Amino acid sequence: MPDSSLLAPESLGATISIGEILVEIMAVTRGAGFLEPQELIGPYPSGAPAIFIDQCARIGGSAGAVGSVGDDDFGRLNVGRLQRDGADVSAIRVDTVYPTGSAFVRYRTDDARDFVYNIAHSAAERIEWTDAVGALIARAGHLHVMGTALSMPSVWALIEVAAPRIRARGGSISLDPNLRKELTVDEQVRARFEHLIEMTDLLLPSGEELERAACVAGKYQALDTLFEHGVREVVLKRGADGAQLFGRDGTCIEAPAFHVCELDPTGAGDCFGGAYVACRRLGIDAAESLTYASAAGARNVTYRGPMEGAGSREELNDFIRQTPRSR
Amino acid sequence: MPDSSLLAPESLGATISIGEILVEIMAVTRGAGFLEPQELIGPYPSGAPAIFIDQCARIGGSAGAVGSVGDDDFGRLNVGRLQRDGADVSAIRVDTVYPTGSAFVRYRTDDARDFVYNIAHSAAERIEWTDAVGALIARAGHLHVMGTALSMPSVWALIEVAAPRIRARGGSISLDPNLRKELTVDEQVRARFEHLIEMTDLLLPSGEELERAACVAGKYQALDTLFEHGVREVVLKRGADGAQLFGRDGTCIEAPAFHVCELDPTGAGDCFGGAYVACRRLGIDAAESLTYASAAGARNVTYRGPMEGAGSREELNDFIRQTPRSR
Repeated sequence: MPDSSLLAPESLGATISIGEILVEIMAVTRGAGFLEPQELIGPYPSGAPAIFIDQCARIGGSAGAVGSVGDDDFGRLNVGRLQRDGADVSAIRVDTVYPTGSAFVRYRTDDARDFVYNIAHSAAERIEWTDAVGALIARAGHLHVMGTALSMPSVWALIEVAAPRIRARGGSISLDPNLRKELTVDEQVRARFEHLIEMTDLLLPSGEELERAACVAGKYQALDTLFEHGVREVVLKRGADGAQLFGRDGTCIEAPAFHVCELDPTGAGDCFGGAYVACRRLGIDAAESLTYASAAGARNVTYRGPMEGAGSREELNDFIRQTPRSR
Repeated sequence: MPDSSLLAPESLGATISIGEILVEIMAVTRGAGFLEPQELIGPYPSGAPAIFIDQCARIGGSAGAVGSVGDDDFGRLNVGRLQRDGADVSAIRVDTVYPTGSAFVRYRTDDARDFVYNIAHSAAERIEWTDAVGALIARAGHLHVMGTALSMPSVWALIEVAAPRIRARGGSISLDPNLRKELTVDEQVRARFEHLIEMTDLLLPSGEELERAACVAGKYQALDTLFEHGVREVVLKRGADGAQLFGRDGTCIEAPAFHVCELDPTGAGDCFGGAYVACRRLGIDAAESLTYASAAGARNVTYRGPMEGAGSREELNDFIRQTPRSR
């Protein structure tokens, strides 16, 4: 039986994330990069931690973002969207010097993606401790960490403080490892990752990230290793192959994928995670939470833009009723 | 009679500019800013000094750009375009840390423009002295300066060295004051401007910039003041009211505007300047140069994108034949 006390209840305080807030601009046509003028669409609010929080709020969880945007329309777009969707934006700093971070993305015909980024020299990584950040952390009931945060010094500095504080007040922690195979993981990041795993209640890897997170070959060996390190539940996101929940007590629940026509996969994993954490914290049982999470991820890929398809509980109920599943 | 030796001849070496290289991304629809996702088009190669040089090269002048781009598709787009159009790109530095500068622009219904910039924290302002820059300056015959360069420390540092060197070898200097009324001009910029005016052969102001450049009220008083300070010729760009040339010897030539349907005014003044300087340096007389310049500016506004309408000599000849003028 899945552990119903896995995550701290909604009543303890908001689910928060700490990390990059961006706009995304997408090429309309497929092809190689941005070497000629072309049709684009955007700016879309983006940044994995922000997508997570937006979906969390849309489905009815209390949620807040710690981040930084520029004093420009791209920043206002992001803050406005999160606010409209019910998220707490009090701890989003407006940087008056650096612009809001941005990412241009174009899909190639083989589904690979080309990017042009402006993140490192943008407001996105200029996250700092403010009274508002301290206040949000002091009333948070759950912290969700994106693995990418481990290689952003300003983000890690806050997570290092926030994680033990939130745990000390009875809060819980989830981690999306984001250990994509194209990323090289240096020793420092690995050490941070291991430090965080010890505090993680819920791990949300995609595909082969499970084995990379455990540093062990073999799916079940990886699960054993993670459970030994203190993780209480692993929810494995497998895209069109559906999702699987593994509990430390041996529980296993399988959720078949929804069949959708994919328009834009960006943000699917973050919507999945945001919906799952919100549902569990709202007291919805693990199997139903997994269905909502799968629906949130699937619905989001039918919309162009990283968080355009984040659904409310009602929209996800409709989606679940209307969308065929693998079995 | 206009002074046929106003600018150094083509044979002395290339016309060069020093300054920002950017991409521009335009909103397709009119409206206020970038507060929601929308249709965009871009990236277009841009940056006033780059537009000037591109038009200069396209019309057949030898021309080169000193600037800096990021190691990304936006940088490659800019360098590729300038190279394709015949400009010397040897002194464009590729910055491996900062991204290529970018500007998002949207027209409001009243023709005012909203921008989101990423220039100050981009490669665009990270221009530095390199051997390639030194070599290009050493073989340059003319320097064109954008007034905006005066408030960019890294750009001004190079101009301060380049201007006297180019003059010392018999080269000439043109200046587009860019003293838009919305810009506040601090004392340091004013001092730089006055220093540069003493070396300027050709001044290319738009509308009310003439009086602002001279710090004097009244068009003719402004001209007198500028001529006293060493300027030899002033070409006043008046958009749909045509252009006027004033020589220090009292010459006045008027060039009526071409009647075009304006699609995107960005870059018109830079194309005007690039064509004018190239023509004069190629030995084309002042009146005909003024016609080419007016045609280059007018043709460019019929294209979307800041330098998409920069025309070759043949294209401009066709444009001149086919386009009605004010009288």
